[in-house]
Amino acid sequence: MPHINLKNDLPGIRSAMAYSPKTAAPMGVLAEILLRSNKGLAPAERELIGMYVSYLNDCFYCHHSHGEIACIYLDGDRELVEQVRKDYNKAPIPDKLKSLLAIAAKVQQGGKFVTAEDVERARENGATDMDIHDAVLIAAAFCMFNRYVDGLATTAPTDMSSYPLRAKQVAENGYGSHIYTARQPA
Amino acid sequence: MPHINLKNDLPGIRSAMAYSPKTAAPMGVLAEILLRSNKGLAPAERELIGMYVSYLNDCFYCHHSHGEIACIYLDGDRELVEQVRKDYNKAPIPDKLKSLLAIAAKVQQGGKFVTAEDVERARENGATDMDIHDAVLIAAAFCMFNRYVDGLATTAPTDMSSYPLRAKQVAENGYGSHIYTARQPA
Repeated sequence: MPHINLKNDLPGIRSAMAYSPKTAAPMGVLAEILLRSNKGLAPAERELIGMYVSYLNDCFYCHHSHGEIACIYLDGDRELVEQVRKDYNKAPIPDKLKSLLAIAAKVQQGGKFVTAEDVERARENGATDMDIHDAVLIAAAFCMFNRYVDGLATTAPTDMSSYPLRAKQVAENGYGSHIYTARQPA
Repeated sequence: MPHINLKNDLPGIRSAMAYSPKTAAPMGVLAEILLRSNKGLAPAERELIGMYVSYLNDCFYCHHSHGEIACIYLDGDRELVEQVRKDYNKAPIPDKLKSLLAIAAKVQQGGKFVTAEDVERARENGATDMDIHDAVLIAAAFCMFNRYVDGLATTAPTDMSSYPLRAKQVAENGYGSHIYTARQPA
């Protein structure tokens, strides 16, 4: 049961965002830019980073939600998503993404855990400055999203068939910035 | 030295935000709403929560920046800010704020650390559902801001006289949402 009366029956972060639409607006815009940009990292890579950080933060709702969205971008390859979740170093993904996941895992622990060596390794594997920036900020943003979801004890569906359905909506329509950017904070 | 070439000489989060204005826009709006709203928690209380979480995350730039902004709202009472930073339980602040700082400290560790007892105690001390929501989200947001700042190894001024000067600008003009909300993400 949620810690406060969120006044709706939505799951996970959707419940908290519906309770507080003013703060939801910029959070939706941030998710849209960070996770659906096609510049540099692909949306599938962005979602895998978000999924992995959510998994490290033990956020059930977020790591399943974003795992399913990644799965759609990967043409349904749920096995690959599972491999990244459990041991990305052995997953058949590019070394660049592996080194960005390593940076994301350091950010999950705390910003200062990221070392010059981590960044140098990512660069050697082909990451640009913007790729590194985006990996750091995606990881940092999920440290916010995950804490928002679990800090309020929002409910996560246990019916796992709901996650692919919601993922399809997000993959098709995005994180709602088309609504949110039209609003101004009061 | 920053991990990537941020292409500017600004300190802390301002450097990262200038490097990536598209993501800076919603982050600025979120900070503006969370930290400067007068509904429920006062701006001074909001800044103290942000300062304290930044201190727990060992983010030098953020805890000094937001400590100085809190100080302005507290009519220059830097001693009180220091007491909250070091041992808020002994600081001369209301029990409501103490119990919200306790929740924020749990969120800093991870969302699931917040217990029903923590929330019940805040309620007994007069916190509303929205106060509890805001404390959780402010703490969660600083877990993002702090990781963004330190995950990129942005520079923090060691000249401590710069923090009150910048704090005065923020207290007077806000976090820049008046600029940011006019922009749409591309």
